[in-house]
Amino acid sequence: MSAQTTAKGYGIADTKKYTEFSVKDFPLKTAHADDVTLDISHCGVCGSDVHTVTGGWGGLNVPWCVPGHEIIGTVTHVGDNVKEFKVGQRVGVGAQVLSCMKCERCKGDNENYCAQSVDTYNAKFPDEVEAQGGYSTAIRTHQQFVFAIPDALESEAAAPLLCAGLTVYSPLVRNGTGPGKTVGIVGIGGLGHLAIQFAHHLGAKVIVFSHSPNKKDDALSLGADEFVSTSEDGFADKYADKLDYILSAADAKSIPLADLLSTLKVDGKLTSVGLPDEPWEGLQPQAMASNASCIGGSHIGSKKEANAMLKLCAEKNIKPIIDQVLPMSEAGKAIEAVKNNNVRYRFVLKQDLA
Amino acid sequence: MSAQTTAKGYGIADTKKYTEFSVKDFPLKTAHADDVTLDISHCGVCGSDVHTVTGGWGGLNVPWCVPGHEIIGTVTHVGDNVKEFKVGQRVGVGAQVLSCMKCERCKGDNENYCAQSVDTYNAKFPDEVEAQGGYSTAIRTHQQFVFAIPDALESEAAAPLLCAGLTVYSPLVRNGTGPGKTVGIVGIGGLGHLAIQFAHHLGAKVIVFSHSPNKKDDALSLGADEFVSTSEDGFADKYADKLDYILSAADAKSIPLADLLSTLKVDGKLTSVGLPDEPWEGLQPQAMASNASCIGGSHIGSKKEANAMLKLCAEKNIKPIIDQVLPMSEAGKAIEAVKNNNVRYRFVLKQDLA
Repeated sequence: MSAQTTAKGYGIADTKKYTEFSVKDFPLKTAHADDVTLDISHCGVCGSDVHTVTGGWGGLNVPWCVPGHEIIGTVTHVGDNVKEFKVGQRVGVGAQVLSCMKCERCKGDNENYCAQSVDTYNAKFPDEVEAQGGYSTAIRTHQQFVFAIPDALESEAAAPLLCAGLTVYSPLVRNGTGPGKTVGIVGIGGLGHLAIQFAHHLGAKVIVFSHSPNKKDDALSLGADEFVSTSEDGFADKYADKLDYILSAADAKSIPLADLLSTLKVDGKLTSVGLPDEPWEGLQPQAMASNASCIGGSHIGSKKEANAMLKLCAEKNIKPIIDQVLPMSEAGKAIEAVKNNNVRYRFVLKQDLA
Repeated sequence: MSAQTTAKGYGIADTKKYTEFSVKDFPLKTAHADDVTLDISHCGVCGSDVHTVTGGWGGLNVPWCVPGHEIIGTVTHVGDNVKEFKVGQRVGVGAQVLSCMKCERCKGDNENYCAQSVDTYNAKFPDEVEAQGGYSTAIRTHQQFVFAIPDALESEAAAPLLCAGLTVYSPLVRNGTGPGKTVGIVGIGGLGHLAIQFAHHLGAKVIVFSHSPNKKDDALSLGADEFVSTSEDGFADKYADKLDYILSAADAKSIPLADLLSTLKVDGKLTSVGLPDEPWEGLQPQAMASNASCIGGSHIGSKKEANAMLKLCAEKNIKPIIDQVLPMSEAGKAIEAVKNNNVRYRFVLKQDLA
């Protein structure tokens, strides 16, 4: 049976009208022997979706953009080279759908840093077919970017793991989060509330920094050992030289970077997975001179890490807190809520076109 | 014999009149059993001196400030606990004169990151005596911050090693500079021209990035394998994913950080030892997302590193290029030249008060 050639989805054509989704058919990428095609059942609503459809990260790269890269679905077709997946299997797709497979990065479990990487949406495949995301009926992608979903994870809980989860899991493990380490998590939203759980279950002592004191109970119940309100003057003083690593999911240009950096041990690192629309304000290297600390970036994670994360989630019962599951037709409502920071902690869309 | 209690130096009282040095007597710190007192013969002129006397890093912390922290001299007195040094020995003092000696950082060869660290000048000792620098006749400091100078190094060449040299040597070795590594050096001035030599003699392949194409010959003769002019569009393109580490000594708020970061391999780091008066412009975590790179700080180096650096310099004939040796009375002229970037690559002041 040949694979379907089109799908239907909810897309945005104008970043000024970022809640006005229209429904259209669109072509799927040309089917290759390494491709897996799936019917989508659920898709999480990620901060990236908001930055993209509002134009915060720049204009659209395609005339009409279907967002969504926290995708769960059922395999409907596999190419001849695909051995890992079979028709009928429940799988997931995250924020990346292609890489070159040939470079050192691809060959070294760093395919998420391949220079030829293709994003799941608002991007184009090498053959110029537009890549469209998961607010839709189906997606086709290379098997490297398809993940088996453990039976223990419900679909609506698994969806947000594929971007929000992987985006925080990868830097946590790459930076040594584990027993004997003290790790700070900054910003308790869709990403941060998963990061707390990962850091805790990986064995680290977890210090949560948040400017929202009313998230204290959530943070502690998710596994934080301590909660620090960054709105209090001198909040960082008692943590000076205490932290091995900080992961910031704060999506803001004016987080108290210098204070946070001061809590790091010598050679400690802060990774920001929050990607604000505007540059950081006032950062000077002086803020990192007193402890040889550094501040860095990260980009989702590798398939190896995705599989390890999903296994950990299944074993330790780690899951996102789902605020609402909405039909995909309410994508605009979900986008607005994420933009206004009115989500605790994730919205998931459910298929209503097929 | 008891140690002298005062010294005489060239100091600044007003950051608006940063070239108008006055000569005064000042008290040395109270002599302790761990202290070494030296008569100063030479002192290098460091960018820090300029930032301090011009107020670029903030106002003065003392009413009258003697700058200078690249100090060479001869021991005139040692306390009872001092075994490493003897009267008459040639020694050096750098940018730090005290730390607590008790914390984890001090006990772990990270005394340069001690929270109780006292700078060589524009600072106060715990007993409130003002710390004054090396544009003066004498200095007294704890033996931990005194370094033996190998015979092979001339005094005027050794002086700049004690701040400029150590400031670049420490991050280079802490970040793995050695055989098989490709290291970028940004900014070819007092610090950068030493960093090129260190990176080369530590065994790395050295790529120099500079906005001054006329420094190409110097860079290559100092040991650079390649010279890249950052004033050319797309200068970074051919170096994408090639560099393991970058050390930036550029003292400017608007260096092409995103382009430089793009040359790093996955998990690569850029350390900025340039400490500009103003924050970096336009830095976003996005610039570090494509390769999980990071940008960090550093603060001089430990005594262990200083001794290793001096040994390497003696063995490999590494030395600063001295533009001019001036009498200390011409400190103002030297400060002005460093401020205007008219130095290739270091001015050294020679004693003329004693």
